[in-house]
Amino acid sequence: MNVDVEARIRRSFARQGYMATIGAELVHVAEGEVDIALPFSDQLTQQDGYLHAGVVAGAADSACGYAALTTMDAAAEVLTVEFKINLLAPAAGEGLLARGRVVRAGRTLVVCRGDAVMITGGKERQVATLTATLISMMRGASG
Amino acid sequence: MNVDVEARIRRSFARQGYMATIGAELVHVAEGEVDIALPFSDQLTQQDGYLHAGVVAGAADSACGYAALTTMDAAAEVLTVEFKINLLAPAAGEGLLARGRVVRAGRTLVVCRGDAVMITGGKERQVATLTATLISMMRGASG
Amino acid sequence: MNVDVEARIRRSFARQGYMATIGAELVHVAEGEVDIALPFSDQLTQQDGYLHAGVVAGAADSACGYAALTTMDAAAEVLTVEFKINLLAPAAGEGLLARGRVVRAGRTLVVCRGDAVMITGGKERQVATLTATLISMMRGASG
Amino acid sequence: MNVDVEARIRRSFARQGYMATIGAELVHVAEGEVDIALPFSDQLTQQDGYLHAGVVAGAADSACGYAALTTMDAAAEVLTVEFKINLLAPAAGEGLLARGRVVRAGRTLVVCRGDAVMITGGKERQVATLTATLISMMRGASG
Repeated sequence: MNVDVEARIRRSFARQGYMATIGAELVHVAEGEVDIALPFSDQLTQQDGYLHAGVVAGAADSACGYAALTTMDAAAEVLTVEFKINLLAPAAGEGLLARGRVVRAGRTLVVCRGDAVMITGGKERQVATLTATLISMMRGASG
Repeated sequence: MNVDVEARIRRSFARQGYMATIGAELVHVAEGEVDIALPFSDQLTQQDGYLHAGVVAGAADSACGYAALTTMDAAAEVLTVEFKINLLAPAAGEGLLARGRVVRAGRTLVVCRGDAVMITGGKERQVATLTATLISMMRGASG
Repeated sequence: MNVDVEARIRRSFARQGYMATIGAELVHVAEGEVDIALPFSDQLTQQDGYLHAGVVAGAADSACGYAALTTMDAAAEVLTVEFKINLLAPAAGEGLLARGRVVRAGRTLVVCRGDAVMITGGKERQVATLTATLISMMRGASG
Repeated sequence: MNVDVEARIRRSFARQGYMATIGAELVHVAEGEVDIALPFSDQLTQQDGYLHAGVVAGAADSACGYAALTTMDAAAEVLTVEFKINLLAPAAGEGLLARGRVVRAGRTLVVCRGDAVMITGGKERQVATLTATLISMMRGASG
């Protein structure tokens, strides 16, 4: 992993207003791997009191994006092209952990898997699985 | 459309902590159609200052879920099974409008399309398209 | 549309062994639009006697790929990055028609929608909807 | 696993005209796991001479469907609700192996992952990953 990549990821994460709003933190950064965690909050729920799919998907998408960034050039920015999420169980519990992992890193496109679990009393339950395609963009390039 | 369905949808929407957090409002409810709108906010951004995919996807998912609910029994609850979103352009502008539309309503499963546009100066630009599968659950039934 | 693009698409289609195997024909080529049709056959069925999802998805994917190609440079090749298909109804009937339409054409990536209908006695019934991401590759470039 | 489930799966597979057309065989059946293999053939190619996405997706979809069926009631039939496939590399090689694995089995819906590899000289290269949602239908029930 490029030596500066963790610092770049932490600076980028800090610029995300949405990550602060949902109370998310970067809890693991390694080559091809990023984990994001957040505590349960009543401000993030859908109508039945579980975490909303937009929160689960948003955390998993960012975890995938930064996992992808660990495989890219120092000058690259990462954008999500698409993702698909299967919601496997209600997102009930003390906190959410989203693990983004690189499945295949190409020169332009990176495919990642994001698995989201709810943690309660130290035990995990998987609540969603996501696959995402990310694209590497050069800074300053017009899309 | 069942006469009470709009009232049920508005009550359900009001219970969603996440919709309040992102500043979302129900702006259209009709048979097979629900629109949700929210203003741009720095609290909802990704690292480049655009709305985060979790916000765009969350609004479009809720619009699809309520659109699906308009086709269901009075006793039914709706849950998202899965969705897939293609991000077409950066979500920059004054506000987001997510339109959920029923594509096919079965007895158990409903498929919806959600199109998200950013509106600036009254003009729309499409920023994402989503397809979702929703399931009808009877209240009180164990999943 | 580039004047030669229809000829290029027809040559490319003719090189696809799979399109011949499933009896598919190009029935419409226009800017951002390609339709592919095939007759029902017992050789293409799943266990209940309907067309297999691999046939429906394959025809819709090729329709999307060629629709995307109509928006690209003369020197470009098109590859499918990913697609997602919702199967809406059993693929029963006399023939399948898959319509690929460009939703957004970027410089590198193109997003398309593919709608598949079964036609019986001149009447259509939608059986699937697909969204695909395609990438433009320069001929001779290494992926 | 229900004692008769492998026999049921083999009978169902044998009724699929498409599996015969693409030369596919069931090569592994266990609780929550089904593998399908097929040899490369020029009759199954896209324009560059690789296996067509419809073949790769079709084999992976069937592997997922039968993997899901191993978790269902003896009286149940399985239908694919949707799937999403990321194409990771050109499907070049001697043969395709698609592994369907159950990720979560609910009472009505089952989520599976399908990974497709090309095998050449005994070595595997992953060419696609798919996630699918399957539904359990009672035989004779109207959808």
